[in-house]
Amino acid sequence: MKLKGFQKLTLTDKALQIWLKALHIGEPKKALVPLQDAVGRVLVEDLTAVSDLPRFDRSAMDGYAINSSDSSGASQFKPAIFQLTESEEIGSKQAKQVWTGNPIPKCANAVVMLENTKKTGEKLEVWNQLTPNENVSRIGEDIKKGSIISKAGNRLNPYHVGLAAALGMDQIRVAEKPKIAILATGNELAEVGSKLSGNLIYDSNKIMLSALCRELGAESIDYGIAKDKIEEIGCKIQSALENHDAVITTGGTSVGGLDLVPEVVNKLGKPGVVVHGVAARPAMPTALAVLQSKPILILSGNPVAAIIGFEIFGRPLICKLLGMDKTEQRPMLKATLTRRVASALGRRTYVRVRVYSKGDEFIAEPVSAKGSGSISTMAMSNGFVVVPENREGLGEREAVIVQLFSSLEAAT
Amino acid sequence: MKLKGFQKLTLTDKALQIWLKALHIGEPKKALVPLQDAVGRVLVEDLTAVSDLPRFDRSAMDGYAINSSDSSGASQFKPAIFQLTESEEIGSKQAKQVWTGNPIPKCANAVVMLENTKKTGEKLEVWNQLTPNENVSRIGEDIKKGSIISKAGNRLNPYHVGLAAALGMDQIRVAEKPKIAILATGNELAEVGSKLSGNLIYDSNKIMLSALCRELGAESIDYGIAKDKIEEIGCKIQSALENHDAVITTGGTSVGGLDLVPEVVNKLGKPGVVVHGVAARPAMPTALAVLQSKPILILSGNPVAAIIGFEIFGRPLICKLLGMDKTEQRPMLKATLTRRVASALGRRTYVRVRVYSKGDEFIAEPVSAKGSGSISTMAMSNGFVVVPENREGLGEREAVIVQLFSSLEAAT
Repeated sequence: MKLKGFQKLTLTDKALQIWLKALHIGEPKKALVPLQDAVGRVLVEDLTAVSDLPRFDRSAMDGYAINSSDSSGASQFKPAIFQLTESEEIGSKQAKQVWTGNPIPKCANAVVMLENTKKTGEKLEVWNQLTPNENVSRIGEDIKKGSIISKAGNRLNPYHVGLAAALGMDQIRVAEKPKIAILATGNELAEVGSKLSGNLIYDSNKIMLSALCRELGAESIDYGIAKDKIEEIGCKIQSALENHDAVITTGGTSVGGLDLVPEVVNKLGKPGVVVHGVAARPAMPTALAVLQSKPILILSGNPVAAIIGFEIFGRPLICKLLGMDKTEQRPMLKATLTRRVASALGRRTYVRVRVYSKGDEFIAEPVSAKGSGSISTMAMSNGFVVVPENREGLGEREAVIVQLFSSLEAAT
Repeated sequence: MKLKGFQKLTLTDKALQIWLKALHIGEPKKALVPLQDAVGRVLVEDLTAVSDLPRFDRSAMDGYAINSSDSSGASQFKPAIFQLTESEEIGSKQAKQVWTGNPIPKCANAVVMLENTKKTGEKLEVWNQLTPNENVSRIGEDIKKGSIISKAGNRLNPYHVGLAAALGMDQIRVAEKPKIAILATGNELAEVGSKLSGNLIYDSNKIMLSALCRELGAESIDYGIAKDKIEEIGCKIQSALENHDAVITTGGTSVGGLDLVPEVVNKLGKPGVVVHGVAARPAMPTALAVLQSKPILILSGNPVAAIIGFEIFGRPLICKLLGMDKTEQRPMLKATLTRRVASALGRRTYVRVRVYSKGDEFIAEPVSAKGSGSISTMAMSNGFVVVPENREGLGEREAVIVQLFSSLEAAT
């Protein structure tokens, strides 16, 4: 029996580099979205302030606007006396009532807090001495017109959008969501919801990959299940390429000793498969391809290998398609490993862990791997630790960086 | 001038406890959702495996199923010879071809990998000796029927859902999304998208609070802007209470020296406001109320105070409404503070920070606070550090826990 095509493994970083280089991904398409839909979207251009904020000098307190020099020497025992006015401009020794956010009248430069005053008819006692600009939010103090709120390539959070709202911006230009077709292959697969007959098993990869794509801000399109037939797989990939920005397949990277999907892709055109077999555990049978200048990510049919393959290649791909400078990382934390973990030199190994906090440290407990087909090990974990290629395992009590995919609470 | 009602401040933990106690939140309403919509939803009952996985002994490799005892002593130089069969049961010295995932035929108990065999016509050479169950995924090996995949109160991630899919479960019972009405109050406010006239400013709080509610898995309903009028605010809160599970208001906690919204709420019924004024910076003017057994979270109109108030009270409220045991925390990491930070003893202080990684440590740089009205400080940060009530500030180079609300990349 011939050894498989991917016995020569490519290092993961190198593999990603080869793939992205073959792809020439340009600027993302732009979409103008209403502000309320902008959270989680990625900026395609710097988001800049369209005006000063505040737009005018405003009161930061409830109280009375005065000219600070008129309060010189004032105290509770020796109040300064002001005349109240409703005018938009105050004169000497005049005060105008203002609520938080109200504009400061002309010729006023400070606001005395309500609790430091006493009003009697049209007269106001001021009990303390104010400095210029005291309790005043100056024009542009929060942000100046033209300042950058967030840079192109950043993902918008609620606070970026809140700042845009305060500036009156009701639409933001963001990257269009990349459209990613997801195709499962395998004679043994049945769709969830169908009745199982014979030796069939339910497909679980599409739903996970689809959720992972959506988490990153892509749109996922379910391309169904293809039988292990060259024509059927070829047809589906061709159609997926025409209508979407990328294709992810799962299964058929080593079917029956043949690499069915890579073989089909190579038949469809050039350059086809640019990497097949990566030095990662699990995810070794992953293949990376390019057709019509579009990326095809060919993942293993084994659930965990597919997930990790997506983590290594799908995540940076989607970030790139969204126009991000760097790949967005999962939340990370430093934790202490409860026991030693084995790994092979020269392979990047993804160890599933359950992380929890204990006293003032975080503890990472490796979840026993029962092979790359075991989804339950993913469901029982809330993060993973990456053992780099130049390490042969990790030691007990070693400090490691955990990439989290669920909250700490979910695992305790 | 009379001192404000909330000059007596309640400690935040105590305030939350009083509020939740007055609320008697029961079990969440249940919703049955299709699997593809289940990621991010919260379980209302334990999710248990409906069958064994695998459902039958399956091959973990591409190869030939045999009885391991027939391979005794085999090597490449002294192959064991097998007769190929297509039958569902193998006899002595018989082998049946299987692909990964295929069921193991009766009387077979191991799979020899393709690369360790040589096929000639109907004869198969096997080059190595196998142990029982070698390359076989045993029935129930991944998960056993009845085992818990994830517990009630947990939020479903892609892997929980993947495991459910593998088990053929096409619907999951989750908590209904709590419906939260969000109302802004203030004569000075205008809706984003409208034309500003005079001294109006754009409302930025509703859009942020709405995004924060949605992040946690609640549904947010925009209740618009109410003028600072008792009747108008009362009417809106009344209607919001009738149709939703909770109400969040912003503004009017200290309007014109009056606490307008708390006052209105107290007029509407009992118990009304149960806490007003909390020992937190910013978020001090927050009030917590209960009407018709439903929660009303009365936040400051100042954007940062509103956000932090939501973080302290809105987050645990929504987790509780979703049926979670504990409040879900934001991703956290340990970082080193670049400079000292001041805080008042007896107040819990939320310090906005910009976190980035430097070498193998994380650095947290406090973002200068220009007051609680400054949204730009939130937009420039990616996390916050909580200074507890028993500390007076934090020291330079002190190790702190940062709660992240944006990725590390977004701030660098």
